[in-house]
This record gives sequence, structure tokens and C-alpha cells, in this order.
Amino acid sequence: MAKSAKKNSWVLTDTSKRIWVESIELNASDLGVSGAAGIGIRKYTLRGGLSDGVDIIEVNNGVMSFTIMPTRGMGMLEGFYKGNRLGWTSPVKDPVHPKFVHLADRGGLGWLEGYNEVIVRCGLESNGAPGTDMVPNNNGVPSPIALGLHGRIANIPAHYVEVRVTGGKEPELCVTGIIDESMLFCPQMRLMASISTKIGSNAFTIRDEVTNMKATAGELELLYHCNFGEPFLDKGARLLVPASDTAPRDARAAEDMDTWAVYKAPTPGYVEQCYWHVPLADAKGNTVAMLENAARNKGVAIRFNVKQLPCFTQWKNTASESEGYVTGLEPATNYPNDKMFERENGRVVKLPPFGKYLSEFVTDVYDTTSGVRKVEQEIAALQKAKPHKVHSNPKRGLSRGA
Amino acid sequence: MAKSAKKNSWVLTDTSKRIWVESIELNASDLGVSGAAGIGIRKYTLRGGLSDGVDIIEVNNGVMSFTIMPTRGMGMLEGFYKGNRLGWTSPVKDPVHPKFVHLADRGGLGWLEGYNEVIVRCGLESNGAPGTDMVPNNNGVPSPIALGLHGRIANIPAHYVEVRVTGGKEPELCVTGIIDESMLFCPQMRLMASISTKIGSNAFTIRDEVTNMKATAGELELLYHCNFGEPFLDKGARLLVPASDTAPRDARAAEDMDTWAVYKAPTPGYVEQCYWHVPLADAKGNTVAMLENAARNKGVAIRFNVKQLPCFTQWKNTASESEGYVTGLEPATNYPNDKMFERENGRVVKLPPFGKYLSEFVTDVYDTTSGVRKVEQEIAALQKAKPHKVHSNPKRGLSRGA
Amino acid sequence: MAKSAKKNSWVLTDTSKRIWVESIELNASDLGVSGAAGIGIRKYTLRGGLSDGVDIIEVNNGVMSFTIMPTRGMGMLEGFYKGNRLGWTSPVKDPVHPKFVHLADRGGLGWLEGYNEVIVRCGLESNGAPGTDMVPNNNGVPSPIALGLHGRIANIPAHYVEVRVTGGKEPELCVTGIIDESMLFCPQMRLMASISTKIGSNAFTIRDEVTNMKATAGELELLYHCNFGEPFLDKGARLLVPASDTAPRDARAAEDMDTWAVYKAPTPGYVEQCYWHVPLADAKGNTVAMLENAARNKGVAIRFNVKQLPCFTQWKNTASESEGYVTGLEPATNYPNDKMFERENGRVVKLPPFGKYLSEFVTDVYDTTSGVRKVEQEIAALQKAKPHKVHSNPKRGLSRGA
Repeated sequence: MAKSAKKNSWVLTDTSKRIWVESIELNASDLGVSGAAGIGIRKYTLRGGLSDGVDIIEVNNGVMSFTIMPTRGMGMLEGFYKGNRLGWTSPVKDPVHPKFVHLADRGGLGWLEGYNEVIVRCGLESNGAPGTDMVPNNNGVPSPIALGLHGRIANIPAHYVEVRVTGGKEPELCVTGIIDESMLFCPQMRLMASISTKIGSNAFTIRDEVTNMKATAGELELLYHCNFGEPFLDKGARLLVPASDTAPRDARAAEDMDTWAVYKAPTPGYVEQCYWHVPLADAKGNTVAMLENAARNKGVAIRFNVKQLPCFTQWKNTASESEGYVTGLEPATNYPNDKMFERENGRVVKLPPFGKYLSEFVTDVYDTTSGVRKVEQEIAALQKAKPHKVHSNPKRGLSRGA
Repeated sequence: MAKSAKKNSWVLTDTSKRIWVESIELNASDLGVSGAAGIGIRKYTLRGGLSDGVDIIEVNNGVMSFTIMPTRGMGMLEGFYKGNRLGWTSPVKDPVHPKFVHLADRGGLGWLEGYNEVIVRCGLESNGAPGTDMVPNNNGVPSPIALGLHGRIANIPAHYVEVRVTGGKEPELCVTGIIDESMLFCPQMRLMASISTKIGSNAFTIRDEVTNMKATAGELELLYHCNFGEPFLDKGARLLVPASDTAPRDARAAEDMDTWAVYKAPTPGYVEQCYWHVPLADAKGNTVAMLENAARNKGVAIRFNVKQLPCFTQWKNTASESEGYVTGLEPATNYPNDKMFERENGRVVKLPPFGKYLSEFVTDVYDTTSGVRKVEQEIAALQKAKPHKVHSNPKRGLSRGA
Repeated sequence: MAKSAKKNSWVLTDTSKRIWVESIELNASDLGVSGAAGIGIRKYTLRGGLSDGVDIIEVNNGVMSFTIMPTRGMGMLEGFYKGNRLGWTSPVKDPVHPKFVHLADRGGLGWLEGYNEVIVRCGLESNGAPGTDMVPNNNGVPSPIALGLHGRIANIPAHYVEVRVTGGKEPELCVTGIIDESMLFCPQMRLMASISTKIGSNAFTIRDEVTNMKATAGELELLYHCNFGEPFLDKGARLLVPASDTAPRDARAAEDMDTWAVYKAPTPGYVEQCYWHVPLADAKGNTVAMLENAARNKGVAIRFNVKQLPCFTQWKNTASESEGYVTGLEPATNYPNDKMFERENGRVVKLPPFGKYLSEFVTDVYDTTSGVRKVEQEIAALQKAKPHKVHSNPKRGLSRGA
């Protein structure tokens, strides 16, 4: 290895060793890679407003860039691929430090105080709608607790953060963070989250390893809320997902079953619609879903494995631009119903003592007709395995009360 | 303009441009003005205790000074006019960073954890007593939410802060901040708050512009909690307010209807009393209320416009000095009842899509008998328009259950 | 005094004077003392993860060291005596800034989000299990409020912090902090907390003075949660406490009355057991309890006065090491039941207007058989005053519902 003498990893935070790097800027030369201008990794801390104290890591592979927020559970704030923005325009304008987020407020919807990411993890104890769960209290007696929308992980800062470049012919930039969602008498989960991208690539990979830190069994719910607005979402944009079943979450979603795949223009007063998809995959479990614009020349594809992430939710929220014109593509271990319902339906992951759960998915971005067409064909091929049953009404076992 | 070449505005925070000024000190010469010693603007950040991270802007016009807290919704911590303190001594001694305030705690009274300002805005979604409201949830279904005491705006930091001096014969120092109270599926309000004072003046002006950032209609409640202790409040101090009606909030307030206008000495164990006033104004809507000390040689007057702020609440809390000897003068869009009651009585502002609401008021301070007497006469003149009806009991439409 | 010219106290924080020292390191020479290497006091602020912004003060007397957290209510994170760690391994790995703790969450168990100290104060308004209390609201009307686990004091930062060395033959290092648990219409308590240790000593003293800052009467609950794991806790370790009565908190604790004093090895799935002890003391009220390891050559003793701290709780939580293998020794003004129950049973301290409550206790550490044996003998001597009644079942007046 020619570059063995060169530094290829930088620890930016390690609370156990009292390491904390205020800011750093690594260019192509520092990283030992070559390619387009702009390649690099930058870390800095935001000041002022609701962002005060939020750490940001910018990664640029030469054609694609994205920003990771160690302070917000290693979520991805936004990305850019050749001028196309990956993200949406939330009513929440700035990245929000968790100190300003009150998860339990507003009937468990306080999570929305900080919600504006392109990709945000929902979990780890629970995700989905607020609801009551029954868990053993400190006396071992099952007791009710209120679980808020989408859990805690997005509002816990990483205690370990590292950036790295891997060598070889296709060098890769990688950001890794470790986050504990853990307290006495409660779940103790450790998330090791890595986000990586190859130099010059149109894709990035999120690879998460969750460890149950207890000597007793644990539970996990994990959902990736991948949110896109313009230019991938526009009037006539479509979601393509190979599926055996698609069902509306509720009566509101059932109103438009004939157009579940198609998106409207920004519509003031639009009320969200959610669809549950049961994805089809190849023999190895691999599958792909894609959001493509109306012109079918821009698309963003989510490639995941149904052995890790068997559920796929589509969130349509084509409200006005000022209110958040957005759709969510959500590969997950479960559907974002309340946790008791998901547990009843066998969709809560059981982790043995010290057990691990691996989940990995790739986000590809396309800005040409041919690129988009190729993924369309992949999805069509996967669909051939089984007919796609589109349910008119909420389906038993997928929606509470159906 | 002779000073056109000179800098006359300084942006201290702009999160959208990643501007954040840690500290700055501008004296009369920097500001291009002349006058008494002490004129200037200073910005710094507090460290330690509950104040850690609170930004402070001090403004001194030569005879009056005040401190603005961008971190606490642009509230005014305290002021001084020729040695007379504008403010009170709260059980909360230091300015409190919002990260230490838990609005939902203690039955929705968590707002009190940070309450010690001379002027604090209450709003924007709601102000007043904690209560349940029914609002559409993310499915458009009316659902209960718990609104806490006095809303969120006082605990949201400004994402944009600017200080400015305007030229001319009567130069003015001005601090402007922009704050978003905004989240998905919820109200999206933007407050542009300006606090200004003329060099050498005994007055300052608060000018707020609230914008509904949604493409759909919104609601606003806005109240200015202006709190004064000694030397303006003392035994025998009085509130003067021109009003068509004055009514007690509840049975406790009704106990002392004959002395609603008069204040007691600090009284351990005193339980607060609130009075609702319906202010009278001149043809343009302008009116004024004043707190004057027993000797009638010190007074603080609030000049507002009833077209913007039609309601006026008087809060008497003449508890012991250690428990917060204070009275609140509160011009507002509404009375600080729970929001459902205010909506039923037509006192919640309806904002059209992208609509704006302007509210402006002036605080004058007097330290002479003649100054106080002049405002007394103004108020007496305004009262001539109509007799002042003082209700013995809570009034239907003003107090719930009356 | 020969060293009168030398500085012997350092104010590190004083918000009222805008004093805040980012970091300081004082060695034996700076402190004007001599003794073993390592003597000194260091102050610094943690960065990153959940610890971001936590101030730490390290005190080292030459043979014993400990860390105090002004940001977390002057709690003691951990200590070391000749290689023996005072502390435990909580599921919460790092010191947690209060901004990341949501006390009201999880049914009032949010306090656990930050719980990992060797000694943490529980109080001041309340400690113990979450529960409803009835308190006068701002109208003086008794109203329900939810009190969370162990109160607020551990999550309030000190607004005044000072380190000090006292001279003489046995010089002492001392850290003092002042914390207000105070808000309008609510209790107003001021805690002056001092932690001191003599050079070369195996002990430290915690001396707290709580002042009711109101002109009206107040209430206080104060408990010291002193938590130890290995090497003092191991299979066969024992608690020795001179007591007239020992009773199980509940049915779970009653399961093992014959072994209340003895500890198990780390046991996955172990559910906590709590025992209430009514301590015996000498004529002055002084008493001592000790945790000793199975080999009876390591022990940690808590010396307190039953006139100040009449109640003593033992918390057995010998879960797996990863889940927090720990026992708590808890001298207190009360038992950690919900506050209404404690008030009914006369165990809530009543403070007159501006009244003070003093509480002081010493923690000794032993690492020899002879040292441990001597304390065993002290405890046996104290027990002679009265037989030790061990109750098989929860005792009326000590446990709700018994």
C-alpha cells in the first residue's frame, strides 16, 4: 500500500478519551485521493438560533455532497448531486439542536420541532405514531409509558465520531458515529452508524449496526425517513416500488388509491396520505424503490434488503411549498404504527442479549432519462415475481382497527 | 447624509449565512452619534449556571439603558432610567437559557422556570393559562393538545439579530431579531421584533411584525407581559387605565374590587389578583395606561393602540419581595384565558395565508411629578369618552364560567 | 498565619458578577500544601456527545480523588481511593448535561437519562418515586402536579462555584457550589453544597445547607443516593447498618428478607429490591452504615447524623454488569416514597420563612481488613442500644398500602 504512511482516519469526537475537534478541513490531498475539485471533508459547529452547538460534517465526493449531523443522531441534513438538491424545505429552517426539542410535548409530536432532514433515523426503542406501550417498570411490573413520534435516536448526539478514507482503486469517504440510546431500567441500544460514498459516485451507503447492550433480551424498531422535495418531487412525479401488497394506512389514504403512486403539485391544505408496501425482492432479498420526477429524467432510488428492512412506507405530503412539499420513502423493520400494534403483528425485532442488528441501504441519484429508465426496468423485473395487489381499504394486520 | 459612508448596521446573528458575532462593543463614536456618556450598544454571551449560552444586547441611549435577550425570544431582561430600575426581582435570579426550561412540566407551568423579564412576549400560537385546545392533527382530525402557560415564543432564540443606528436629528438605536415558531403540521409564525430608543429619550418602542408563513389560514395570540417592581410599585402605587369596563378575573380578584387600582406593600402569602380592562382610546385607537408610585413622582406608561392590542390585563402580585413583588401591565390581542375560551369569544387573531400582524407600543418612564401629572391628565381625558364601569364579579365573555 | 499572603480561594463561577473560569489547574504548590504527588484541583469543561458543556472539578488529596459536577447539581461523578473506584457502571456512560434530560418523560422517570453518579442529591422539593402532589396553584387553589423521580436538583447547574484550601496542620481542599431550585409560585430553595477532603485522608465530607428563600413556610425532601459497584460490591458483599427496624419496600423486596444484608453476583434480569432501615445512633445522633466486600477487606462507610438524616434506604440492584451492578446507600430526610405519603407520615421537613436546614455526612473508604473490622465493631456497638427488628412484610407507615 503506497499510502500506508499517510493518515487515513481522523477521530473528531471521543468522549471516553476527551477528544473533541472544534473544526477541521480535509481536502483531496489531505485525504490522499484525486478527482474533481471540491473533494473533501469539513467539520464545524453552528452558532446562533436553534442551531447553536450543532456539529456538521460535510462530505464531498466531487460530484455529490452531503451533510451529516453528529449532534442529531448522525442524520443527514441535505445533499447535492450535480446541482440537484436532496432534501426538502421544512417549516423548520435550521438544523435544530436537541436541547430545543421536547419530544413529549404536543401529545408526543415534539419530534417535529427538529424535523427537516433528508434522511433521519426513527427508533431505536420505537418509531411511528405516538402511543402507549406496556413495559416492565423498575419493579418488573408492566406499566404504561408514552412513546412519542419516531423515538429518541434522532435527538441524541454521537459520543464518538470519526471520518475516514479507504484506499484502493475506488477510494471511499466515510463518516462513522456511535450513539447510545440507553438508561437504567430501560432499553440499552448502541448504534454504530456509517455513511460512505465513493469518489465521483452518484450514490452513498448508510450502514448501521445496532447492539443490544444488555444481558437480557431487547427490542428494536428502526425506520429510515428519506424525504425528498423538488426537483425529484413535482406534479406528476411517481413512486415505483416492487410490491406484493400496497394498502392505505387509513380512510384518508384510501381516498386516492388509484393515484397512490402519483404526486400532486404543491397543494395548500393537503392532508398527508400514507401507504404501506410489502416489497418484493430478489433471491438475496435485495430490492429497490425509486421516486422519479414527472419528466422521468431525475430520480432517487433507495436500494435495501428485505431481510433487514422488510417494510416500506410511502408518505405523501404534497402540501404547499411553505408548509413542506415532500414525500417520504421509508424502508424499515416495521410500519410506523404504534409499537404495541407492531409487536402484536410480529414486526418488532427481538434482539438476544448483546445481539446485533445490521441494516444497510444505498441511495442512488439519477439526473438522466437513461439512468432513470434503467432503474424503472429493475423495478419492473422485480415486480414479475408476483402480482401487485393494491388494496382499496386499510388491511388487517397492517393498520390498527382494519 | 454626511454619515452615509459610515457603517450604521451590524448583523450579529444570521444562521442562514452562518454569521455569529461572539461579542461586540459599539460606543457613541462607532455609532456616529453624540450625547451623554455611556451611549452605546454591547453584545456578549453569558456563561455558567442557568444563564450559560444566553446572548445579551445592552442598549444605552445616554439616559436610559436596557438589555435584550435574543436567546429568550428578544425579551427585555431589565432597564434603567436615571437610576430607576425597570424590572422586578423574580425568584429566578439569572436569565435562563431555554435549554433549562421545560414548558410542559408542572401542569404546563414550566414557563415560570425562566420568567424574570421586565417585558416578555407571550404567544404566538397561544398565551394565557394552560389548557387543552383542539387542533387538526397530521391526519386533519381535530385532536386535543395541551397548551402551556404563555406559549413558546419567549423560549425560542432568534436566528437573525441586527443592531442599527438611524441618522438624522434624533438618532435612534434599534435592535431587531427574527424568530420562527414553526414546525410541520403546526402553526408557522415568524416574528420580526424591533426594540428602539432615541438618543437621550425617556422612552423605547417595541415594534413587532408577525407573519403567518403558511399558505393556509393561521391564528395568533400575542400579549406583552410588562412587569414592574420598585421604585414604580410601592405601597399606595396605582394603575391608571382609561377603560369602559373593568372586571375581576375570578373570585379572588373580586375580593378587592374597591381597590383594584391601588397596590399594597409587599405582603407575604399574597395570592395574585387579575383584572381585565377594556381600554378606551382616541379616534386613532391610541391609548395609554400608567403605573405610578404612591408619591406620584415616578411612573411608567405603556402607550398602545387598541386596533392592534384591544385587551389590557392588570396582574397584581404584591407578594413579599423575596417571592416577587410585582405588577404586570399587559396590552394584548386577547385576555390570558385558555385559548379555547378566547376563540369562542372572538379574541383570537385570524391571519390569512402569508398574512401579517403589526403591533407596536411605547414605554415611557417618568421621574418627576410634572411628568407623571401630564400622563394622568391624558388618561383622564381619554376616560371622558365613556363612563368607567367597574364590575363586582367576573363578567360573562371575559372569564370562563362567569 | 504564614500563608496569609497566599491566595487560598478561587471563584470559578459567579453569574451575579459574570465570573466564569473556563479551566484551571492548581497543584500542591499553588494550593500551598505538601504531600503525595498528584495533589491538586483541576477544572475543565467536557465537549461532545451528551457531556457537551458539563463542567468538571477534579479534587485529589494525594491518596483519594473525586470529580464534582457543578453542571449537575454538584453531584459526584466518581472517586478513586488507592486504585479502588468509588462508583458504578451505569448504562449511561458519560456525564450528561441537563439539557439532554427530560425529567417528566417516561412517566416521570426521565431523571434516569442522566443517572450515573457515585453520589447524587435527590430533592429539594421532592425525591423518591414519581407521584402526584397537591399544591396551591397561582390562585392559591390546591391543584395536582406530577412530581418526577428524585426531583430537580441534580439537573440544575450551580450559579456560584468556588474552590478553597484551608490551612493549618491538616489542610483541607474544598469545593463549594450554590444552586437555586426556584421559580415563581413554587418552592424557592437555595442549596449551598460543599465537598471537602483533608490532604492524605481516606474520607470526604459533604456539607449542605438548604435555605428557604421565601417569606412563607416551605418543605424539603433531601436524599443522598450513594451508589457503589465493584470492588466494594461483589458476590457475598454485605451492608451493615445499626437499626431498630428494617422492612421491605414491597412484595419483591420481601421475597428475600433472610438475605437483605447480603449481595448477589451480577444477575441478568435481577429486579431491584429496596429496604427501609430506621437507623440507631449514639447520644449525639451520629451513626454509620458500611458496605463491605465478601472478603471483608474493602469497605465504604457513610457516617451521618439521624437528627439531620433520620431515614436510611438500601437499594439492591445486582443486575448484570452491563445493566448496572450497583447498590445504593441512601441517608435522607425521608424514605423515597411519593411525597404525599411521606408528608402523611411526617417525614417531609417543614422550613420556616427564610429557614435553613443543615445536613452533613462523611464517606470513609477502607482497603484493609483492620480498617473494615473497626467499622464493623462501631456498628455492632451502636446496635447494642436496641434489638434489630427485621420485618417480613412491608410496614405500615413506611410503605404505601402496607
